[in-house]
Amino acid sequence: MDRVVYFDNAATKKLSKVALDAMMPYLTEEYGNPSAVYAVGRNAKKAVEGARKTIAEAIGALPEEIFFTGGGTESDNWAIKSATELKKGKGRHIITSKIEHAAVHNTLEHLEASGYEVTYLDVDKYGQISLDELRSAIRSDTILITVMAANNEIGTILPVSEIGKTAKEKGVLFHTDAVQAVGSIQVNVKEMNVDLLSLSGHKLGGAKGVGALYVKKGLRLPPFLHGGGQERGGRSGTENVAGIVSVAAALGDIVPRLPLDRVTRMRDRLIAGLLEIPRSHLTGDPENRLPGVASFIFEAIEGESMLLMLDQCGISASSGSACTSGSLDPSHVLLAAGYPHEIAHGSLRLSLGEDNTDEDIDYVLEKLPGIIARLRSMSPLWNEAGE
Amino acid sequence: MDRVVYFDNAATKKLSKVALDAMMPYLTEEYGNPSAVYAVGRNAKKAVEGARKTIAEAIGALPEEIFFTGGGTESDNWAIKSATELKKGKGRHIITSKIEHAAVHNTLEHLEASGYEVTYLDVDKYGQISLDELRSAIRSDTILITVMAANNEIGTILPVSEIGKTAKEKGVLFHTDAVQAVGSIQVNVKEMNVDLLSLSGHKLGGAKGVGALYVKKGLRLPPFLHGGGQERGGRSGTENVAGIVSVAAALGDIVPRLPLDRVTRMRDRLIAGLLEIPRSHLTGDPENRLPGVASFIFEAIEGESMLLMLDQCGISASSGSACTSGSLDPSHVLLAAGYPHEIAHGSLRLSLGEDNTDEDIDYVLEKLPGIIARLRSMSPLWNEAGE
Repeated sequence: MDRVVYFDNAATKKLSKVALDAMMPYLTEEYGNPSAVYAVGRNAKKAVEGARKTIAEAIGALPEEIFFTGGGTESDNWAIKSATELKKGKGRHIITSKIEHAAVHNTLEHLEASGYEVTYLDVDKYGQISLDELRSAIRSDTILITVMAANNEIGTILPVSEIGKTAKEKGVLFHTDAVQAVGSIQVNVKEMNVDLLSLSGHKLGGAKGVGALYVKKGLRLPPFLHGGGQERGGRSGTENVAGIVSVAAALGDIVPRLPLDRVTRMRDRLIAGLLEIPRSHLTGDPENRLPGVASFIFEAIEGESMLLMLDQCGISASSGSACTSGSLDPSHVLLAAGYPHEIAHGSLRLSLGEDNTDEDIDYVLEKLPGIIARLRSMSPLWNEAGE
Repeated sequence: MDRVVYFDNAATKKLSKVALDAMMPYLTEEYGNPSAVYAVGRNAKKAVEGARKTIAEAIGALPEEIFFTGGGTESDNWAIKSATELKKGKGRHIITSKIEHAAVHNTLEHLEASGYEVTYLDVDKYGQISLDELRSAIRSDTILITVMAANNEIGTILPVSEIGKTAKEKGVLFHTDAVQAVGSIQVNVKEMNVDLLSLSGHKLGGAKGVGALYVKKGLRLPPFLHGGGQERGGRSGTENVAGIVSVAAALGDIVPRLPLDRVTRMRDRLIAGLLEIPRSHLTGDPENRLPGVASFIFEAIEGESMLLMLDQCGISASSGSACTSGSLDPSHVLLAAGYPHEIAHGSLRLSLGEDNTDEDIDYVLEKLPGIIARLRSMSPLWNEAGE
């Protein structure tokens, strides 16, 4: 292959250099348990608390509002399951969107099986919910609204501040899965009016296996893990010191560079170039989209085959969500956005990061049209259509 | 200070050199998401599955019986909470010991608050439960026995195989928290007759923030985290590839060297030397104890002050459990072993690892008697006793 191009930054990012450098001491000499009283333990504790402060500042929160977890999925699970405990007396109704990540979606399906009622808000072709529909969905027994800040598959940025405002007016708890947003666009928990916000380390240049949950001051979540009482009793277990430090370093490093203008320009060039392919469509919102996410549907294409041929050219990309292991179903996000079942299979997400270059864009623009033409030449669907 | 001596290996171990070397590629170039189809993703997947195989072999399990988690605490929580789901129809009675780690103990207390009944088995002065007492505690509505493989504070190794045999005969699910045992003594899930076994990465030379749960083939636990379906649907969330690899590397490296004879000899020299201090006691089982754990009570001593003075000499140690953040209560383990409240405060755990040397032992044997004498000279308790 001529080149190796990683265009799956929305699935996982390479650990950033600053993050790796920051975590190395905690993988070597500073190996103490933060709960211990002696020097090496105190250093570990200081590192965790410093990281908490950095992350809090990056999203406009207070340090005591940040709880470290084992990742974005755990943060989502904790937030949503907590709402059922916190609002036990109020009811069993939850509102969400039809385009949530599996960590939210499948947690809600699990709750449905045990008697909760979930309203799934429709989205338009851009993946946007209607605020009016949200307002009319709120009932006296609604205990939680959980709507993502930005979609992982189509890059749509949702109107979280407005959702949060509505939730606040109606006195309903509001959680947002901001795993794709934090480190990619400016996120401020106060402006967003959120009560609970999930973030993930490895989506923003930190290590895998660590995340955080923002919990608005005054809310006291039931513990997610019982044990030694770490994270103020909320999430027991020895802190993943190195991982925690890596997330803070990566986030603290990237936030001053947001909104990543160079990445946005590369994304737009990629979109313009690939939309020249016949019967191709940009998925997601053309305006309100993540700087790094270029997402498409190519008609009469099987996404899986396209990925394999891209891989043979050294290009790493995804179709649907890479977070859903081994799933061959068409993306629920694209179906919700109104794409028919048979064409939703031909989706492609190219997600860019700061490590990408203009040459990477050129390379994809050079290779992909040929791949699509070749796949279409073998496709009965395409040939029947007479092209 | 003359020397820096780390004697808190039971709280957390330094990441072993082999573990660090093994994880480095996954913190740098091999950063793929294991769910992805392209090369860097497939490499990550292969690394996770290789690690699963290594860990399975190390404890006599099958690869498909190993589920990666965010740590020992999560493994304990998942195992115990699962039993309540799995055996919903059978009853609400659980049997445990009085000396469990907080990750088990506090999970059970949480279940008690929601209507479960827990029998806490007494222990003798060595921290051993009675198998007869266990047998008579089993009822028709007993859904789980959870007893640790080895105690973290006093190093006692419990008769897990016999407990497992009894559980099997009576048809009761058996979980063991083997966080202190795995990587320290030989552990074989088949010989132990366990259904569920928790292990932790950082206690055996791997990274913090990662652990595993052994789940006997045929048992199907309810998912602990809902989401993308990783870990065969049991524990969603992008895999902590580097962390997982580190645990396998550390465990695969240490198992052939068990039972750590050199560590045991150092431990015994430490015990013999420190028992020469007047009114000192070895806690835990003198015979069946972890190779690395030397644990004591020194009468008329406040553990916290002893730790601070040891720290000033460069010695890292613990009193009670370092896993219980900021707790000043006397250890529930020592109280259960029959030590009175006022002397249980004077506990000290020195936990050794392969990095320790004979010079470390000499240094503690030189420093500690003086520290104890000095603390006692200031203690009203000691002076009242007329010494």
